[in-house]
Amino acid sequence: MMQTPLSIGIMMEHAEKFFAKKEVISQTHDNLHRLTYAEVGERTRRLMSVLGQLGIQKGERIGTLAWNHHRHLEIYFAAPGMGAVLHTINIRLAPEHIIYIINHAEDRILFIDEDILPLIEQVRDKLNTVKTFVVMTDKDERPESNLTPLYSYEKLLQTGSPEQPFENDIDENDPAVMCYTSATTGKPKGVVYSHRGIVLHSYALGLADTAAISESDVSMPVVPQFHVNAWGTPFACTWFGSTQVMPGPRFTPKRLAAFIERFKVTITAGVPTIWLGLLRELEQEDYDTSSLRAVLCGGSAAPKGLIKAFEQKLGVPFAHAYGATETTPLVTYSRLKSYQKDLSEEDTLNERSKQGILVPGLEMRVINDAGDVTWNGEEMGELLLRGPWIASEYYEDDRTANAFRDGWFHTGDVVTVDGEGSIQIVDRTKDLIKSGGEWISSVEIENAIMAHESVFEASVVAMPDAKWQERPIACVVLHKDHHIGKDELLTFIRPQFPKWWVPDDVLFFDEIPKTSVGKFLKRELRTQVKEYYEIKN
Amino acid sequence: MMQTPLSIGIMMEHAEKFFAKKEVISQTHDNLHRLTYAEVGERTRRLMSVLGQLGIQKGERIGTLAWNHHRHLEIYFAAPGMGAVLHTINIRLAPEHIIYIINHAEDRILFIDEDILPLIEQVRDKLNTVKTFVVMTDKDERPESNLTPLYSYEKLLQTGSPEQPFENDIDENDPAVMCYTSATTGKPKGVVYSHRGIVLHSYALGLADTAAISESDVSMPVVPQFHVNAWGTPFACTWFGSTQVMPGPRFTPKRLAAFIERFKVTITAGVPTIWLGLLRELEQEDYDTSSLRAVLCGGSAAPKGLIKAFEQKLGVPFAHAYGATETTPLVTYSRLKSYQKDLSEEDTLNERSKQGILVPGLEMRVINDAGDVTWNGEEMGELLLRGPWIASEYYEDDRTANAFRDGWFHTGDVVTVDGEGSIQIVDRTKDLIKSGGEWISSVEIENAIMAHESVFEASVVAMPDAKWQERPIACVVLHKDHHIGKDELLTFIRPQFPKWWVPDDVLFFDEIPKTSVGKFLKRELRTQVKEYYEIKN
Repeated sequence: MMQTPLSIGIMMEHAEKFFAKKEVISQTHDNLHRLTYAEVGERTRRLMSVLGQLGIQKGERIGTLAWNHHRHLEIYFAAPGMGAVLHTINIRLAPEHIIYIINHAEDRILFIDEDILPLIEQVRDKLNTVKTFVVMTDKDERPESNLTPLYSYEKLLQTGSPEQPFENDIDENDPAVMCYTSATTGKPKGVVYSHRGIVLHSYALGLADTAAISESDVSMPVVPQFHVNAWGTPFACTWFGSTQVMPGPRFTPKRLAAFIERFKVTITAGVPTIWLGLLRELEQEDYDTSSLRAVLCGGSAAPKGLIKAFEQKLGVPFAHAYGATETTPLVTYSRLKSYQKDLSEEDTLNERSKQGILVPGLEMRVINDAGDVTWNGEEMGELLLRGPWIASEYYEDDRTANAFRDGWFHTGDVVTVDGEGSIQIVDRTKDLIKSGGEWISSVEIENAIMAHESVFEASVVAMPDAKWQERPIACVVLHKDHHIGKDELLTFIRPQFPKWWVPDDVLFFDEIPKTSVGKFLKRELRTQVKEYYEIKN
Repeated sequence: MMQTPLSIGIMMEHAEKFFAKKEVISQTHDNLHRLTYAEVGERTRRLMSVLGQLGIQKGERIGTLAWNHHRHLEIYFAAPGMGAVLHTINIRLAPEHIIYIINHAEDRILFIDEDILPLIEQVRDKLNTVKTFVVMTDKDERPESNLTPLYSYEKLLQTGSPEQPFENDIDENDPAVMCYTSATTGKPKGVVYSHRGIVLHSYALGLADTAAISESDVSMPVVPQFHVNAWGTPFACTWFGSTQVMPGPRFTPKRLAAFIERFKVTITAGVPTIWLGLLRELEQEDYDTSSLRAVLCGGSAAPKGLIKAFEQKLGVPFAHAYGATETTPLVTYSRLKSYQKDLSEEDTLNERSKQGILVPGLEMRVINDAGDVTWNGEEMGELLLRGPWIASEYYEDDRTANAFRDGWFHTGDVVTVDGEGSIQIVDRTKDLIKSGGEWISSVEIENAIMAHESVFEASVVAMPDAKWQERPIACVVLHKDHHIGKDELLTFIRPQFPKWWVPDDVLFFDEIPKTSVGKFLKRELRTQVKEYYEIKN
């Protein structure tokens, strides 16, 4: 067989040739843009040419601080397409973390949305490697800024060659993209994606039994492009010729709902928090969402109530998936097997609330102290992963040794696997609650509480206990204008659990602290709960 | 990213773990078998263990002379799974060609269906490298034979370990499978498929916009397993957990139709000749074919009448594809784009009769003497291909130099490409007819003739002509009990072509000579036509 490399450039060339008329619809700060893949392809080529003019060398890192829009998409292909490395920076990180990752990645150039300029102006003096700044704006005038040299994206493109070829000399294992994941303690950790990893992951997204991304799709990634490449959808959707709808900066549930209706979005992807927000919007106002064929949900486990609302009230298939920054990210996808179509409504919902089966191309193990667990839906163990789109290390980081051992990535996620091979996230290894020598899953209790109609969010954490070692405490946010007490809530969940799983207390919050990507920040929550009891006692 | 190889063993392991209950339904000479993937997986492991016991070394070739059934499927995974190379032998080749390819591939062991034993017994003395024979039969008694040593497949399996692991030490570029393609002149040419090529090709078959092979499919490969791995469907279907229906030895259209009804086949694959036969059966008898979601057609261009009959009369989507032994084989797949859904019935049929657009992961060029052709559906050129599942050579064969040049596989197929990037096969380079300095496509005239309701088959060949260099002659087989003359046929097609394209003569045949895989054997036909005119004049 020919030794042609799997490379990202080929994906855009495919779109230019076979899907030239299809569109990317992009909301920026000022305007709604509609560009064809012929245009996006030409602009990508101009950008590669410009990057060369600006002195960017093969292998150098190109940072982006940007929302989901067409310019960000162009950099997705131009950076790896010219042999450099796209580095998407999470704009929600604390400034000291942003400084750290730009310096650690040694970014040479930063592409910055106009509303994010102040963030970088503020830390500019601490960036050691950045030589050039580019602002992405629709305005003719470049904004006032202390960043120098500061170019305007659109003006730069005018100087590039529309026929610049994609770099030919690519080894498929060359780095193409990198992304830092926030650690629960310490600095963020960098993950590098190769051309090979991105291409194979894109195939996985196109499979009929996973996301089935297709030319006939209209895809709206809500998950940010700075978060694991918006789960890889912009790469796959471009390759397969889907229409893409980029919702732009600081979108609201209202904009998402309006875009679904207006552009007939068929597939969209995001974390549970986003879908909770969208659900409330859809319940308050009338929108035509009949075009949707799948709502992809990942990042953390979706509560059953959310799945039920989307599937049964709105008639929208809710597709649970699992992955991580270290896994590009798609690892499992939830889809009923052909012989499960006759399951009862409740059993179907149970299946839907699992994270699904492994995507073809990866290998998994689930282990605890006794070795590989039995696939019976009950035994818990840590999920280990192996495969061509699983990272093998953190970028220049000592923490590699702990997570990547014996040829496997140790996810830190505790799961069960049922007889069908479908996994269910039970907890993070570090969030499991150990009571009287037995494990309690904080996530299972959270899901049970969130099934109550008055509950908006719930997070369960461990508190030290003299007798039992640890005991669970539930932290709950209620829906607006809902009133319910501790006893009613515990009575509601009690039938579902052994007696010793039931939380010792329920605390009501206005808001639960979250990470920059919308996951519960349990470390912070534990501190708050601990302080509460210290003050109380 | 991890450097885990793409390997065939992982595909079967995936089926064993995630699709253990799904079935392979297999017709052998004596029985209909139903095995789960758990069972097929265990038998595959036993077979790998047996192959080791028989002294098969890594990289050695394992020949099969077999129809489509579960045992053949097991060898598909066991041979590459233990690091050896599966060599599927076309049982329809002439004995001297079978001798040639077994010796050329240096097969160490042959797995033979019981009804094919006589073929090998007859040539046994000329096989230089085969050390062991295995007969595949349901019978307890091994048949009488001069082949020694001759083992029975089922008895051997009993001696193998059901837990034999797949070979761990696989380089993804290692040879996994080989297949010989019959040449129009000279000996067959060998093509070697790597693990990498087979895995990537399987991803391509699972994409939503190509064959979309899925767990919910019931796949019946009619194209033989000895012909380009039944187009790769057994690999992809096992990986993705589809039910597989193997139609076994010497099947008839009646058996195919009955299996579609009985097992609710959703997807099936074969050459136009097969579908012509099935169509006649479906017109004569009542069958429930409502389960079918796609009929894959490749090998040669399907006449419009056939496509129309399947799509419009039977309501079965007819999916035209293109490929070759050298391309694993999937290269293009015909599927209307989302914005083509409102085409008229006739335009839809025109689109359907093209071979479709390039599958993601490959690159193509179409060139003639003036360079790359314009994609306007009119300019003709030879199709050149490049990509990770395109062969880079013929196995130990001087003819490599001619077909594999400048990094591209020169297919020898003349095509047009329309504005959508959809290719249409116009002819083989060697079958184009050159008249008065201009090219005439024999295939286009054939398709036009075959659109006549009285015509069963038509083939157009060039005859030397003193004035025009070459002139087209049509060779036609009529449907039984149909009577129609030369003039009526030429009048029928005349409006569709320039005057000088219309054949000089129409000759009526009982049968048109075909290759072992059902394609018109134009070399032989030209000889017959030439002889006819020599006798006549």
